[in-house]
Amino acid sequence: MQALEWKDGLFYRDGSPALMISGEFHYFRVPKGDWRDRLRKWKAAGGNTVATYIPWLIHEPAEGEYSFGEHDYDDLEGFLRTCLEEGVQVVVRPGPYQYSELRYSGLPGWLCEGYPQLLARRLDGSVFGKSSISYMHPLFLEKAEKWIRKVCGLLAPWCAGRGGPIVAVQLDNEAVGIHTWFNDGWYDYNPDTFGFGNPDGRWPRFLREKYGTAEALSEAWECRVDSFADAAPLCQKAESRGGIRRLRDYEQCYLAQVSDYFALLRSWMTESGLDLPYIHNSPNPDANGDFFEIADRMGPRFLLGSDHYYNLNQNWKQNNPTPQYAVRNFISLETLRNLGVPPTVLEMPSGSASDWPPILPEDARAAYLVNLAVGMKGVNYYIYTGGPNVPGTGSTTDLYDYGAPVSAFGECRPLYYVQQEVHRLCGEYALAESRLLSDFTVGYDREMQRADCYQGYREEGFLSPGQAWEFTRAGLLTTAFCSGITPSLCDLTRFVPDPSKPAAVVTGSVLSRAAQENLAEFLNRGGRLMIGPELPVLDEELRPCRILADAAGISPEQLSRERGTLDMDGVPNIMPETAPVSIRREGALEELVRIRENGHAVSALFPAGKGQVLWNGFGWSHGRHEHNDALERLLGALGVCPRISKSDRNLFAVVHAAKDGLLLFVLNLYSAPLAADFRVRTESGEARFDGLRLAPMEVRVLKIPNGEN
Amino acid sequence: MQALEWKDGLFYRDGSPALMISGEFHYFRVPKGDWRDRLRKWKAAGGNTVATYIPWLIHEPAEGEYSFGEHDYDDLEGFLRTCLEEGVQVVVRPGPYQYSELRYSGLPGWLCEGYPQLLARRLDGSVFGKSSISYMHPLFLEKAEKWIRKVCGLLAPWCAGRGGPIVAVQLDNEAVGIHTWFNDGWYDYNPDTFGFGNPDGRWPRFLREKYGTAEALSEAWECRVDSFADAAPLCQKAESRGGIRRLRDYEQCYLAQVSDYFALLRSWMTESGLDLPYIHNSPNPDANGDFFEIADRMGPRFLLGSDHYYNLNQNWKQNNPTPQYAVRNFISLETLRNLGVPPTVLEMPSGSASDWPPILPEDARAAYLVNLAVGMKGVNYYIYTGGPNVPGTGSTTDLYDYGAPVSAFGECRPLYYVQQEVHRLCGEYALAESRLLSDFTVGYDREMQRADCYQGYREEGFLSPGQAWEFTRAGLLTTAFCSGITPSLCDLTRFVPDPSKPAAVVTGSVLSRAAQENLAEFLNRGGRLMIGPELPVLDEELRPCRILADAAGISPEQLSRERGTLDMDGVPNIMPETAPVSIRREGALEELVRIRENGHAVSALFPAGKGQVLWNGFGWSHGRHEHNDALERLLGALGVCPRISKSDRNLFAVVHAAKDGLLLFVLNLYSAPLAADFRVRTESGEARFDGLRLAPMEVRVLKIPNGEN
Repeated sequence: MQALEWKDGLFYRDGSPALMISGEFHYFRVPKGDWRDRLRKWKAAGGNTVATYIPWLIHEPAEGEYSFGEHDYDDLEGFLRTCLEEGVQVVVRPGPYQYSELRYSGLPGWLCEGYPQLLARRLDGSVFGKSSISYMHPLFLEKAEKWIRKVCGLLAPWCAGRGGPIVAVQLDNEAVGIHTWFNDGWYDYNPDTFGFGNPDGRWPRFLREKYGTAEALSEAWECRVDSFADAAPLCQKAESRGGIRRLRDYEQCYLAQVSDYFALLRSWMTESGLDLPYIHNSPNPDANGDFFEIADRMGPRFLLGSDHYYNLNQNWKQNNPTPQYAVRNFISLETLRNLGVPPTVLEMPSGSASDWPPILPEDARAAYLVNLAVGMKGVNYYIYTGGPNVPGTGSTTDLYDYGAPVSAFGECRPLYYVQQEVHRLCGEYALAESRLLSDFTVGYDREMQRADCYQGYREEGFLSPGQAWEFTRAGLLTTAFCSGITPSLCDLTRFVPDPSKPAAVVTGSVLSRAAQENLAEFLNRGGRLMIGPELPVLDEELRPCRILADAAGISPEQLSRERGTLDMDGVPNIMPETAPVSIRREGALEELVRIRENGHAVSALFPAGKGQVLWNGFGWSHGRHEHNDALERLLGALGVCPRISKSDRNLFAVVHAAKDGLLLFVLNLYSAPLAADFRVRTESGEARFDGLRLAPMEVRVLKIPNGEN
Repeated sequence: MQALEWKDGLFYRDGSPALMISGEFHYFRVPKGDWRDRLRKWKAAGGNTVATYIPWLIHEPAEGEYSFGEHDYDDLEGFLRTCLEEGVQVVVRPGPYQYSELRYSGLPGWLCEGYPQLLARRLDGSVFGKSSISYMHPLFLEKAEKWIRKVCGLLAPWCAGRGGPIVAVQLDNEAVGIHTWFNDGWYDYNPDTFGFGNPDGRWPRFLREKYGTAEALSEAWECRVDSFADAAPLCQKAESRGGIRRLRDYEQCYLAQVSDYFALLRSWMTESGLDLPYIHNSPNPDANGDFFEIADRMGPRFLLGSDHYYNLNQNWKQNNPTPQYAVRNFISLETLRNLGVPPTVLEMPSGSASDWPPILPEDARAAYLVNLAVGMKGVNYYIYTGGPNVPGTGSTTDLYDYGAPVSAFGECRPLYYVQQEVHRLCGEYALAESRLLSDFTVGYDREMQRADCYQGYREEGFLSPGQAWEFTRAGLLTTAFCSGITPSLCDLTRFVPDPSKPAAVVTGSVLSRAAQENLAEFLNRGGRLMIGPELPVLDEELRPCRILADAAGISPEQLSRERGTLDMDGVPNIMPETAPVSIRREGALEELVRIRENGHAVSALFPAGKGQVLWNGFGWSHGRHEHNDALERLLGALGVCPRISKSDRNLFAVVHAAKDGLLLFVLNLYSAPLAADFRVRTESGEARFDGLRLAPMEVRVLKIPNGEN
């Protein structure tokens, strides 16, 4: 076998594009005698890969006493051998962290109970999770290094490059979540790890490297700090710009520390003889933003994926994937694609730790096809199959059945046949190499996806990156999908959007310098760009920065905050989320939206550089037909000409460019049947699908062969 | 016509049980020329009542200048005349508060903008909502009294008792919500209203009446307070028992003030000549608890209803009614029934202010039938039909269409026919007089439904009323519905449960004195009672109170907090939510659940008084088949013998006693089709329904005539 390979956002196997189709398969739960049969069933279902945790708590039951192969359940090498014999690729997940409904999240009890000093802490010093460790605590690193070197030494001969089945290795699991979930959204503040009060500690050092002098720090934080050792982090919403900087500094220091942790894990693994791509799973679609710099630092052989659940227990209010789920996961996969990797869902719901509410096969099918529709190229079903927990290691049931496609006793359930059918469709439509086609680009600044710390800060006219992201997600993108206009996302920190395609960016008061530069360059290259509802005047450090404003030829003096009703010609009363901002500037090519009461222009198109800028002075949360009407008109003014037209805004649809033509995905993510007409523009004309009727939760894929229509 | 009448939880009309079927119909939006036609359509759909706001901002556009009948849109009397002529009952909702997507929530702009002193305030003095007024602010009361007397004087001749169509009047609208929604869950702290610092102010007076001396107050609050005027309310989660009392005191003072407000509104209305039942709508199912004392104070001619939405915008994650919705609304309707009134949904989703996500007719049908299944006897659809907003009064669109059953232009939509069909079913099955049959009683203490202030307080072994409620809702009741065991709720503050039927109460460390007395009496009368997971040792003021413990013959010394796995014979590993509490006591009739590791009994049945008590030392959140197995066994030990048996725990089912037999409601609240077998025990044997197949969101009603089977 060969290690996992990818290029231009697609996985390759033996030189050809191939989806990674993986099922989570715990050798320590599935009875050894059943391994081979279940691997064969997985191949019969279209799977080519299995993934497994390698639980520290099972293999090092007492400190320094390792157990590999002494029992059936810990015969890791036996499992790898069986996978090799069956020709199934393996992704290993040796932790240290794992969850997996294991006690202490898979960490040894002797570690968490015996060494409480290595647990993560609140700012007040208290512990918040009995297995939430502090990643870079020296004692934890000492113990973890021994474990990782031990297990990876054992794995090394089984790597794909050496004739083994292991094609990738995961670093830790759902990082950051172990802190934020249990500490009310805040991070770890373990004093040993961060060295508060110690001039050489991690946090004081981070600040010294960033600011140089205590005076510079004091100025940034807008409060007097006598020395770096004295600088205390904040743990409450900021009430001032200084407070925002202080929160953001801790966030950056914390995330840099996670990145150090990942680098250490990788170095131990590499030194133990692993020569593999490294992967990691962001805990959920909204958490991908925490891993941007980590992905940059880890380089091209690192793949960030994300976990895309839609229901795990009764406190998740929806029991099925919804249109909201589709938008959220589209964003996640596009964010991953921007990191240069094939968009991969590393935990896809496939059964549930809860028996209720159930994951019904029809809903799961919709979830799989939704993810494929919005660009997924790799998947790991959590779980494919289970079995009894090793006594004393499960944190939930004795029998970890999970309602999986193949039960703990080896029977194939309806969910199995759903996955088999989906994989058959993947082959039939060659989804391994299909590409989602977009009508326009939506740019985002990395700050937007993780700037929770900004959200609480209120200042008249200050729109935070987090709020701009909210308008992007709940407004721009959701409205676009309802309208059948397909966006693609562009990470403005890294890229200049393609100037041949119109772009839209929801801008707040803050936009990173890099994003401003890239957008200025976009205009310079003749791009057509929608911005608003605020003019960015600050960079990510909240220092003055008007690169974009200058490139767009818009100054704050031309803008005014308004009260009143927003009207577009033929589209009355477009409900915005915040006070609209009008523009008073000569030379408009077109004025699209006005304040009814005073006629001031809120949306207007201007020439800018070699391109055009559309000032759009309102943000919205999608909820009204008027939002569709307005967005369709605004994007039309920029030159967007959607590929799809459809007669029902509730049905989502996207088009892929595939091997022999186009593929139309139509998604009914409601519990009622729906019907509509669809048109798709093709190179040679138009494909028409009239009166398409979709059952509740039906996702249909329709081929549009080249040359037809 | 006669005013709205009810008895024993049913509405009556002309001496016979009759559902109240009302549609929200805004005369100020629907064009006058269309009133009659739409009223006739409503009758054709099976409606017998319409409800309407009477917006202050429309009828008093400038202070002191009233407008009634000067325009078509403010011709209130014309509307009442048309309703009378058409034989349609009217529920009037003159506010003062209304929402209804009106500017300033229906209050006049001159009031909110011109008199900022009457706005509600945070504890720090800041304003949190531009139309959130402070109910008992003297200036607000002065203005509101004039409005109420004016409008009610005009309404008086149109009351049912005098030959008019008005059958009930609503006091204000969704009270309390206007504060908690906009102040992060906290109340109004307007200093003029509450008189902080003023010895004769409302808050100091409340404390003086409760505590008598500052010393007693200091002791209760566990902090030194020099005088009642000095006593500051809290506005953060409590960290001590004193803190809990302090929070609870403010909650009680605040709620008493709402009750004073209601009493004032009613007195103005009565003095203006209204002789009608008064109604009010709790903002949502979880808010009913705020209105218990208000309902007691208002007496038997007051009807509290609740608003039961399932989706209002994209931030509501589910787009359809779910099993979770069913449980939540069952609780709401049972809570209302305990107040002695017919369970009524005063705002039932019927269209939406958002076009997206849509309220699809199939989902709405399921919502209506779910509410009928769990006991609804009256409904007001929000909205039945709309029209253009009076210019300058709408806070959203120009055209308030709402996706209603009858559009703003008068056409009947699919939703109309769904409602018509549901009303036809109501008639066919005589649901006006059917009664939900229960298998056992679940008792609750009023504290449980509103003790949010307790939730943040952590003390080893302290289980707050709010947490006990969480186990009740998410554990006991949800598991019971999945198992097909139908509960009925009993307000333990008011009632001794029926001793002929087993009862279960999730008990925490705190249980009100009244509830303890009523449960002791229940045991005394031979009742069989399940309690746990904590032994109540405190009353609602957190003072020692062991009435229930003594009656049950259980002392804290017999109980121990455990770690370990919970096993029942044949049901291994029942996952609890908190550390289980074992009981060591002689004389158990049966031990049901034990700690696997040490054999200690966690659930055991004992004789108590003339009855029996089942100590159940664990709480849970429903998620596992083992929860069903355990609850079925526990309730079986108490003598519960469920009427229904069914082969799929995902399908909910309930039985009504109806005119000529039984009615079986089967509910598929999932987006996938489901099938199952059902058996219902009847007086003469058993009714069988094998292989019932239900489409997504299908709710079916099946007749079981008397004497059959």
